Amino acid sequence: MSRYVISLGGNALGNDAKEQKKLLEHVAKAIFPLIKQNHDIVIVHGNGPQVGMINLAFSESKSTPIMPFAECGAMSQGYIGFHIQNAIYNEMISKKHYRPITTLVSQVLVDEKDPAFMHPSKPIGSFYTKEQADELTIKQGYTMVEDAGRGYRRVVASPKPIDIIEKSAILSLLEQKQIVIAAGGGGIPVIKKDSKLIGVDAVIDKDHASAKMAEIIGADALVILTAVDYVFINFNTPEQKKLVDVTVAEVESYLKDNHFKKGSMLPKIEACLNFVKKTNQKAVIANLEHAALAFEQKSGTIIHP
Amino acid sequence: MSRYVISLGGNALGNDAKEQKKLLEHVAKAIFPLIKQNHDIVIVHGNGPQVGMINLAFSESKSTPIMPFAECGAMSQGYIGFHIQNAIYNEMISKKHYRPITTLVSQVLVDEKDPAFMHPSKPIGSFYTKEQADELTIKQGYTMVEDAGRGYRRVVASPKPIDIIEKSAILSLLEQKQIVIAAGGGGIPVIKKDSKLIGVDAVIDKDHASAKMAEIIGADALVILTAVDYVFINFNTPEQKKLVDVTVAEVESYLKDNHFKKGSMLPKIEACLNFVKKTNQKAVIANLEHAALAFEQKSGTIIHP
Repeated sequence: MSRYVISLGGNALGNDAKEQKKLLEHVAKAIFPLIKQNHDIVIVHGNGPQVGMINLAFSESKSTPIMPFAECGAMSQGYIGFHIQNAIYNEMISKKHYRPITTLVSQVLVDEKDPAFMHPSKPIGSFYTKEQADELTIKQGYTMVEDAGRGYRRVVASPKPIDIIEKSAILSLLEQKQIVIAAGGGGIPVIKKDSKLIGVDAVIDKDHASAKMAEIIGADALVILTAVDYVFINFNTPEQKKLVDVTVAEVESYLKDNHFKKGSMLPKIEACLNFVKKTNQKAVIANLEHAALAFEQKSGTIIHP
Repeated sequence: MSRYVISLGGNALGNDAKEQKKLLEHVAKAIFPLIKQNHDIVIVHGNGPQVGMINLAFSESKSTPIMPFAECGAMSQGYIGFHIQNAIYNEMISKKHYRPITTLVSQVLVDEKDPAFMHPSKPIGSFYTKEQADELTIKQGYTMVEDAGRGYRRVVASPKPIDIIEKSAILSLLEQKQIVIAAGGGGIPVIKKDSKLIGVDAVIDKDHASAKMAEIIGADALVILTAVDYVFINFNTPEQKKLVDVTVAEVESYLKDNHFKKGSMLPKIEACLNFVKKTNQKAVIANLEHAALAFEQKSGTIIHP
């Protein structure tokens, strides 16, 4: 019996409620073997496309108020969490092996002095013209940047997670062998001011939040499920080579040589390194399609101390 | 040490994120005395205006997909739950008396044969013209009705809650003296089909959901916090009389004489009667402003067996 954190990409969840429900039936089947083996499981999911959609709905709608980004993130936790717990419940019932499962609305602490706040870099929401962008900067104080010729977009900071505020609920539920969905979208980012928690417009990388989760709950493994079978070096070149079983030292040397793509494999690698170095446990990056094999360490890239 | 379910109206939460945050600071102060006395506490909140706002944002926005009502409800649980747990956390920290608090995304089971599904009556979302309404009926299968001369609105069913799917998580957390926010907006309504849970477009009355919650967790009292100090009979007439301490039999006789207004006091009264009759415990309907007094049974209407 082991304790796992499973990190699930928001891009694997489709573009609307119907697609998301359908795709999660598949995810539930992939995760079920782990449930049946009675392991402790926490699921952390991404929310990039979904929080973008929610933010866009409020931006475009004429009659609704402005919805701050932290609140859009909270909404995405409800939206995606509902579908995950529903899909896994249904899968367990159909396989006659039921364990309680619940989503916790989760705040994740970040440091207001995190250097990321000085250099907001994570694009969110819709595209605007230069004139609209300038107006948003003046009226809302948004940082707007030109995005690859497609127009102007708001950027927010992507600070590092320090703590998960609702951790004691997560731990209590794990003790009862319940399955927990938490820190969705990397968590609702909050800073501490005069000991009070205040929501901020930022995005916490969900892989970094997963690594923090794995550290806090004392996980035996952090499993990042994505769309590729293995991590590669020299990706998309004739020298391309898949990594099967690698040490922290090896991965760090590849990292130094810029083998991993920013905004895609890089944060996953960094999150795994953080977790493995801090805890001496292992991390796995694998294809969601082969999740069952990955849990048996027969597929995916394993990073160990 | 007692176990309480506190039912909080969605109308008390303002019209946007900023207002909601501000108003919840006040709610947190009102509830704090109960937390300090170390009682078990589950908070159920309404979501009428909030889920309407979310639904409206998706309806009006041109670039986002249609968002089914069950999913809008899930979003509202994240949105409101985040603000409640944040406000109560901050209040506890400032009073130096901390207990963990978390929101659970909650599905509530309803019966697909509930007669309410034959007579959808709960208006939700925006107003439409006759032509738009007809189109929505044809394209989306919505039931649309004319609403008091203000245009056409969609109506959905308001079925009775049968069970709370995530109840074991709620009970586990209560055992650990954690404060739980659950079944927000009455819960995400789901029906059972071939043992699977399926989200449906419906609205569960939050007072009825609170009564079901109180029954399931074995609460000593159901406390419905609202905007009036007492329940009245002959309301707004010269014979108006406040009810302070009444039996089920008395309330039932007033109910028969139509003393309570549909859509406002009536569901609260029915929910209280359900709970008190089933459990022989007591129910309180009181003003949020005097919550602390209400918990000591020094304010509000108490209904007992």
